[in-house]
This record gives sequence, structure tokens and C-alpha cells, in this order.
Amino acid sequence: MSGILHVNMTTGEAAFSPRPAAWDGLGGRGLTSQIVSSLAPPMCDPLGPRNVLVLAPGLLGGTDCANSGRISVGAKSPLTGGVKEANSGGQPGGHLARLGIGAVVVSGRSPGEEFWQLEIGRGKARLAPSEAAGLDNYEAAGRLRERHGGQCSLVTIGRAGELRLLASSVAFTDTEGLPTRHAGRGGLGAVMGSKNLKAIIIDPTGAASVPLADKEAFRDAAGRFVRALRSHPVTGGSLAEYGSAAMMGLFNEQGALPTRNFRSGRFEGAEDLSGESLRALTEARGGQGRVAKGCMSGCVMRCSGDFPDKEGRRVGKWPDFETLWAFGPNAGIRDLDSVALYDRLCDDVGVDTIDVGGAIALLMEAGVVPPGDAAAALDLVRQIGPGTPLGRLVGSGAAITGKVYGSRRVAAVKGQAMSAFDPRAVKGQGATFATSPQGPDHTAGLAYAANLLAIGSDVDPLSREGQAELSRRSQISAAAVDTLGLCLFVSFAFFETPGALEAVADMLNARHGWSLSASDLDGLGRRVLETELDFNRRAGLSAAQDRLPEFFSSEPSESHGATFDLSDEDLRSVLDFHK
Amino acid sequence: MSGILHVNMTTGEAAFSPRPAAWDGLGGRGLTSQIVSSLAPPMCDPLGPRNVLVLAPGLLGGTDCANSGRISVGAKSPLTGGVKEANSGGQPGGHLARLGIGAVVVSGRSPGEEFWQLEIGRGKARLAPSEAAGLDNYEAAGRLRERHGGQCSLVTIGRAGELRLLASSVAFTDTEGLPTRHAGRGGLGAVMGSKNLKAIIIDPTGAASVPLADKEAFRDAAGRFVRALRSHPVTGGSLAEYGSAAMMGLFNEQGALPTRNFRSGRFEGAEDLSGESLRALTEARGGQGRVAKGCMSGCVMRCSGDFPDKEGRRVGKWPDFETLWAFGPNAGIRDLDSVALYDRLCDDVGVDTIDVGGAIALLMEAGVVPPGDAAAALDLVRQIGPGTPLGRLVGSGAAITGKVYGSRRVAAVKGQAMSAFDPRAVKGQGATFATSPQGPDHTAGLAYAANLLAIGSDVDPLSREGQAELSRRSQISAAAVDTLGLCLFVSFAFFETPGALEAVADMLNARHGWSLSASDLDGLGRRVLETELDFNRRAGLSAAQDRLPEFFSSEPSESHGATFDLSDEDLRSVLDFHK
Repeated sequence: MSGILHVNMTTGEAAFSPRPAAWDGLGGRGLTSQIVSSLAPPMCDPLGPRNVLVLAPGLLGGTDCANSGRISVGAKSPLTGGVKEANSGGQPGGHLARLGIGAVVVSGRSPGEEFWQLEIGRGKARLAPSEAAGLDNYEAAGRLRERHGGQCSLVTIGRAGELRLLASSVAFTDTEGLPTRHAGRGGLGAVMGSKNLKAIIIDPTGAASVPLADKEAFRDAAGRFVRALRSHPVTGGSLAEYGSAAMMGLFNEQGALPTRNFRSGRFEGAEDLSGESLRALTEARGGQGRVAKGCMSGCVMRCSGDFPDKEGRRVGKWPDFETLWAFGPNAGIRDLDSVALYDRLCDDVGVDTIDVGGAIALLMEAGVVPPGDAAAALDLVRQIGPGTPLGRLVGSGAAITGKVYGSRRVAAVKGQAMSAFDPRAVKGQGATFATSPQGPDHTAGLAYAANLLAIGSDVDPLSREGQAELSRRSQISAAAVDTLGLCLFVSFAFFETPGALEAVADMLNARHGWSLSASDLDGLGRRVLETELDFNRRAGLSAAQDRLPEFFSSEPSESHGATFDLSDEDLRSVLDFHK
Repeated sequence: MSGILHVNMTTGEAAFSPRPAAWDGLGGRGLTSQIVSSLAPPMCDPLGPRNVLVLAPGLLGGTDCANSGRISVGAKSPLTGGVKEANSGGQPGGHLARLGIGAVVVSGRSPGEEFWQLEIGRGKARLAPSEAAGLDNYEAAGRLRERHGGQCSLVTIGRAGELRLLASSVAFTDTEGLPTRHAGRGGLGAVMGSKNLKAIIIDPTGAASVPLADKEAFRDAAGRFVRALRSHPVTGGSLAEYGSAAMMGLFNEQGALPTRNFRSGRFEGAEDLSGESLRALTEARGGQGRVAKGCMSGCVMRCSGDFPDKEGRRVGKWPDFETLWAFGPNAGIRDLDSVALYDRLCDDVGVDTIDVGGAIALLMEAGVVPPGDAAAALDLVRQIGPGTPLGRLVGSGAAITGKVYGSRRVAAVKGQAMSAFDPRAVKGQGATFATSPQGPDHTAGLAYAANLLAIGSDVDPLSREGQAELSRRSQISAAAVDTLGLCLFVSFAFFETPGALEAVADMLNARHGWSLSASDLDGLGRRVLETELDFNRRAGLSAAQDRLPEFFSSEPSESHGATFDLSDEDLRSVLDFHK
């Protein structure tokens, strides 16, 4: 399997080495979590030199498999205190894989205050003083592409990461070289900043094709996989039509859309922020607006787009569902222009739209900015880069902001903000938020598919019954997908489309010369979760941290009157793999 | 034993009941920790209605035993996440004991935003809307004494507690009715604020003497105890002469005084802040300045005083050693007037001088205010009450401030700032900071007595040898003293003066009709620690949290070149009572 690029920020060395046997058979999240678990002392300071930052394409990265270009970023998280993986689209994942790099492992910390950039080309890598220090992501990407060539893909942090703010993201350039793709969750941008690493520049010039054990079999399976994706109404239809916002309306109808800092599950302005509205406005404005756009080469689902302003100039990418929610319903804002601008500002300064949105909702509840006041909220985001006290606070995410403002209604688990599902109304998702070793990510397991869409199976979202098992299955499946380097949206085809999972197993076998069956993918996901749970245990996390904030049990949602009522025993059973 | 006053803030009821048998034989910290452990669900939100706030005088409270008027405050701490006890001098401890009240247990939370006051008299108690809402402690105390009579003692929170800031203290009035005494650590003022309880007014009118099982034996033992205190050079000499600041010079000489956010152990301005300077300046200025003052009735050590300004007007109390350190060496400030004003501002708004000082030192290191700039630092403290973002941050303490400013040099354990001992230079104290169930309190165990003063025993402060055992003994002893309601400074006589400990055991027996020996006091201390450790385990704290910040192991102190090198095994052995 492909080799490892070790970058020691303390000594300034960057060197390739073969992959140790213990890391074999892994990619993406599986590999980042394994490397973090092997190299980072579980009790290390996440922002200290003993933490490691790992970037890894997935097991199918660099191949012609559709949507296989995701890149995983891993480290001990300064937000959760446990192992973290956040993955992203964009071009760097595919480029690294085609350069034969299975993982980039950044350790130590450069002495002094200067920021550095890692320059990677075919068979070579070196550290140099960064040409982009002090810049936000858009300007940094522009300058680095200008100096290193438009063929390069980029990994950067904005000013938030340089400030080591705990909601900082790591940005990845898309097919147009714009830093619109982010490993947003868990403060991994702060870890990159703590190492004084500003950017990674990846020049794919001369990169070979990824080697395939059986080209013919791979081509055949890849074709079947594309057909499966195209035949499913979500992966082959609504995502390209309406983006990830496609589900806004349905979740709102079901009272599952957290509104005004999780007071209600329905937002009166949801329709204004729906995928339908997003598409209609984009098409009506025209200009640089664009729909059905992939964020990386080989994307067939094309859930992205470009959002145009009133004059048709591109503001930024189409905001994703979670971003639309975080700055929309959860902050009481119903205007697409504001959300698109929020997304652009967050992408630029380099922060997680979910955690920052959670902080804004809390500041609205605390009366610091008026509820629903988009201009005041955007001003908070603009304060992140200059590092004003309020800007730093917002850039530190919801949990810390909630503490500083004395809130008892902080929707966070393990220090990280919850994403766009009211756990009282989608209890399988609540079980995942409580128990995932990753903290409450929307990507930790798509239990909502069964709870709200009856996709895969149909589990009553309001009942306690079946949620633990649903959460377990969803988390295993998500961990496997994240290890393959596939976009998590392919899960919809996995859940429902005959042959989709088999096609992926066939591709893995044809790529690596393995002989897995589709059901072996579950074992892969379980192995990843076990590695993560073991690290977290050694880092001092326990079942005590695997729970939702108290108010979800004591305060019925305004929409359903329901509370989150899974017992401690229910939650303990979620990741008990002997069940 | 004396009864329990239960105050349910949710229903507005205040009612007396007998003490359950399980809580027998306990007072002070032993009783608060036992009640918190019995009544607060270990996983509860510390600022939610399921937490309880407990106030309890000690086992010798209300008697004529010297220095027996301390009052313990307990709750699940919003800073540490574990059980917390902080105790204070002042008059309320003695008043409650003489009213026959063994503990006040405040549960629930009043609906709405209004603040309430608890009015306690002989045989009666009631809740009423507070006459002091929105006021800081000095103005609150003035108004409440004006309305309820100068004989009343008071327990109040300032604006910091109302804002539920995590470094908020609970204030107690001294012999002159001023709110100069604080249960400072662990954010207990935020817990009181979270219950919407602004003040407790205790009218001792008609309070009986505390019943004694054997009056004669008590009087005899009390006399012996006073003689023991008076005969020791610390408890009978230097404390009254120089206050708790007496030790500043010695700790500085030994390189143990954390300076500029724990970079060094020696401060070039230490002499300006010494007990000698404090006394000389107070005497030279005269006016309202005063030395050798007790903070509660029956004090024979008299470590306090009144600090006068240049015109001789009282600024506030004599700042204690920890306050002198926190705003002095640790912030690079060498001017007594500034420290005294800092102390006054903190007492007024109601915050812990240690945690706020730690936050200020971090903001100096981050360049937010210039290092050593007293005026700029005082301005930060003045921002706490109005609740500006920076004021809230400072009022939230060092750990959160460090996170928001991306610091890797946060001297905090379990979320609470460390107090005035460099753990690299006083390793027994470092062991206590790491392992105490209370977090890194200066009062959790006086290992420095043996490490730096050769009092009790003589353990080389720089060696690893013997520190775990020293820390264990110190923590047991401190837990016992805190349970008795004695001022912790009596420990110096316990360590060295023959008959001191026996006199205390004799008083306990004569008060309660028991038959303890002096050595049984250790068993009492151990029982308290075991209760606290058990609660913390159930709250999700583990050995993983029993450690110092990473930089103490990797960054040698500028004074000694030493790092903190106790192993995990050393630390695990500290509170292993089978050793």
C-alpha cells in the first residue's frame, strides 16, 4: 500500500517512509484514527507538540471510483479531548493518493512564531516559510496558486487556525482551486495552527495512476457503482437538484429541525431556506450562479453549486444543509443571502459553521445580539479574524461560549456543538450524538435516514425502541464509508440500491488484491470505532461523557412535547459490539 | 446533632428537619461533601436545578474553640465537574451553628429571572424577593444590614454570581459586617446564582449557646488549644504580624513563587509585596489602616487587617498571600496599592482572586494587556460586573481564558486555576494539585510546610522521593481540619506543637459526647476524601484528570531548571489509602 510522509515540524524534516504493517488495510478515517492512536499520547495537550495531525485519502482514493476523493484529517481534538476525524471533499485527497501518499503525518511544532508551508510534489516534500501567513483562506489560496501553479491543490488554515481557535477548520481547494471544502469539526484547524503549519501545497504534476490489482474488474465494478448511484432518487436526483438542503422541508415538517437554539423543531422560515428556494434563486439570478456542481473530480452526485448575489456575482459555494440550519433556523434567520455570506465568511476565516452557529444562537439567547438579526450575527463572524474577545469566543464554538454566558441550554456533547437534528425528535440520531467517539457530528451515523426518511429501515423517531441498534448500525456504516474515502451521501444507495455495496467491495478487491465480501465492510467500520473508543478511554473519556445535555431530558421540545428519554443503559448498549 | 434547613428554590419552601443518621458525625466540608454526594446526581448540570448548594459550619462551629467559625460551601463545581468545597471565615458559620443549623441545603431553582433572599432567624426561615438584586457585595451588604439590622451576618453573591460566571465566589461578612470573606474556589457563586439565590441573611438574635456534652472538659481543652496556638511562631506570631503574606519572601527565595504565568519561581518585586512591606505601609499610612485583625469572632491568629490608601482611607481588607501572588508575581505587578484594589474589586463583584489572576496572567502572555500593567489589569476586573465579553472571560477563570486565547501554558487542573506554588519547585504541592478531588487548591493540603518550611517533616521539594506520601498525609489532615470548621492555619500548630491535636480531639468529645483520640482525626479526613473521590468517579472524573498541564513536564522552571517529574504511578499512589 502507499507510503507515509512524515513531517517533523520541530526539526523541519519531511521524509517518506513505507507504511508499517500495523497500519495496513486502512485508509481515510481508519488510517488517521489508527495513526493518532499509535503516535499521539492519549493524555497529550491537543495543541502541544506531542499531538499529531494526520491527513489521509481513503482506500479508494485516487481511483476512478465515483466520489472517492474525500480526505480525512485526524488528531486528538482540542474540543472533545478524544480522537477526531473530519473529512472533506475537494482535490487534495485524490492528488495525494495519485502521488502514492497514504498519509501525511505532521508531528512536533516549529520553534518560534513563524508559519510554514509544506510543499509536496512527485517523490518530494519540503517545508518552507509560508507565503500565506496571516491571510484568510481565499487570499491564501489565490496567492499560493499564483506562485505554485493552478494545477496545485491546497490545504490551508485561515486566521482562526492561526489563532488556534477551537472551532477552526482545515480548508481544501475544490475543482476550481477555491477553498470551499472544509474538515470543519473538532477544531482540527487549531491543531494545524498549533504546529505553525499554514498550508500544504500539492503539485500533482507527473502523478501516476493509482495501481490496480485487476483493472478490468475495477472498471466493471466502478460502472456498476455509478449506475447504482444514478438510479437512487437521492444520490441520482435530489442532491444534484437541491443540494444537501434537499431535506430541509421534510425535517421541518417532522419537527426535527432545531430552531432558536433547540427550543423548537420547526422553523416558520424553513421554506425560504429550502433546497427548492436555493435552486430557484440561483437560477433566477443567473450570472455566476451555478447548480449541480461537484466539489471534486469524479463526483456524480453533484450536490454543490455557486451562490450568486443580486448582481449575479459569486458569493461562495452553495451553503450545505448544516450551514443553512446553523445560521438559519437555529439563529432564527430566514434569508438565503445572509446564510450564503455567513458560509463564505466562515470558509474564509476558517471555522466550522456548525459550532460557530451554535455559539451565535447562544449569544442571541443571552441577548448579546438580537435573535434573528443577521447583520449583527455576521458582524460576530467578522470579529473572528481580528481576534476581538467576542470574535475569539464565537470562534471557540458553542460549548465555551455557553459557559462564558452562563447558559444551561448548550447543545453540545464532549465540548462540541450538536448538528442539525433535534435529538428529542430523531432519537436514533440523539443516540449517535451521545455515544459517537467523534462527538455529535451529523456525519457520525445517518440514523435519520431510517428515523425520518424510512430509508434502509423504518424506526419510529419518537420511540425509544430500536434506536440503540439503529445508531450502532449507522455508526459502523459511516466509519466504513469514511475509511473508503467515499462521500457519505453514497450511503443512501448502500441502504437501498441492490448491488451498490457489492460494487464497492469489488472495487476494493480489484484495487488492493483483497477478497472482501460486502459484509466485511461492517468489520472494517467496527475496527475503526474500536480503535477510536480505545483511544478515548485512554484519554480519560468514559460513559459519563456519552450523554446529551440535561435540558434535552427535562425540557420537552416545543414541536412534539417529547424529551430525550433513552436510558443510560440504552446508551451504553449502542457501541457494545457484543450485542 | 444540629438539624438541616432545606430550601427548595423551585417551590419556595424553607423547612427544618432532623439530620439523617447517614450524615451524622460530620460537619463543614465532611458534611457538605456528604450531602452533595447524597443529593446531587453526579452527572447533573452544575448550573441546573438538580445540583444542590450546601452551607455548613464545622463540628466545632459556634463553640468557644479558637478559630472554629469557618463555614463550608459545597456543590458540584461548574469548574471542575466534581464535588467542591470552599470554606470561608466571617460570622455566618458561628451564627448558623448557634442557631442549631448543621447545614443549609439549597436545591432546585426558582422559576423566572427574579433573585431571592433567604432570611434565617431563630427557628424560622423564609424566602423573599431580594432587596439586593443587581448589587455588588459591598452595596448589597450595606443595604441588607440597614434593613435587617447590624447584628445580622450575610452570605451574598455579587454581579459575577448573578451572571453565573465560573470563577464567582460566595461572600461572607466579617466582624464588621463587610463582605471581605469568600468561599472563592470552584465557581460556587455561580451555583448560588444559578438557583437565583442572591443572599442569605442570618439573624442570630436569641441564638442559644451551642450545647456541650461536658462543659468543664471543653473549657479546659479550649484553653490548651489557645495556648498551643499562641506558642507556635506562625500561629502565635508571624500571621498576626504579617498576615498570610508572611511567607512571600521565603517562597520567593526558594524559587517556588510562580512568576509571570509560571515561567519562573522568583519575582524581582517580591519584597515590595511581602508581609513586612504590607505591615510597614499600613502602619506608616495610619488612618483606617489596621493590623492583626481577626475575620471572625474567636480568632486568636489574627492574620487580617485593613489596607489604607495614601490618605489613610480603608481600601479593603489586607490582601491574602494567594491574592498578593495572583495579581503580583504572576502578573508581574509589584505595587501593593494595585493589589489591594484588585482584592477589593474582586471581593465586591464576587470572584475568586486566584482564577481571575490566572486569567489576567494569560491575557498578559497573549498580549491583550501589557505584562505588569496594573491599570490595564484592573480595567479587566472592572469589566466583570458589566459583563463585557472580556470581563465575562476573565470572570470565567484561567482555564477558559486560556482556551479562548489558544494558550499551551494554562496552569490549571480539572478546569480550575492552580494557586501560588510552582509544582516543579514544591513537588509535594504539585502532587496535591494533580490529585486532590477538589482540584488545585492551596488549601487542599499544606505539603509546602514540609517541602519549604521543614514544618512537621522535611521533604526535599525538588526530589520525587516522599512526595506522594507527603501529599496523602497533607490532604487527609486538611480534610479533617475543614470538617472541624477550623481555620487551616491551625495546622502549623498541629504539625509541631505537642498537645494541639489532642486538645482538639478533647473538644470534639466534650462537644458531642464522643470518645475520639487524636489519631481518629485522620480517619475523619480519610472518610471525607473517600466520599469526594467516589462522587468524582461517578461524575466521570478518573486518573486521567489527575495530572498537571503538560508544560510543567516539558518546560523547566527558569529558577531551578526543574520539571515536574512525578510519574503517573506516583500520582496514582497519592490517594491510595491502602498504601
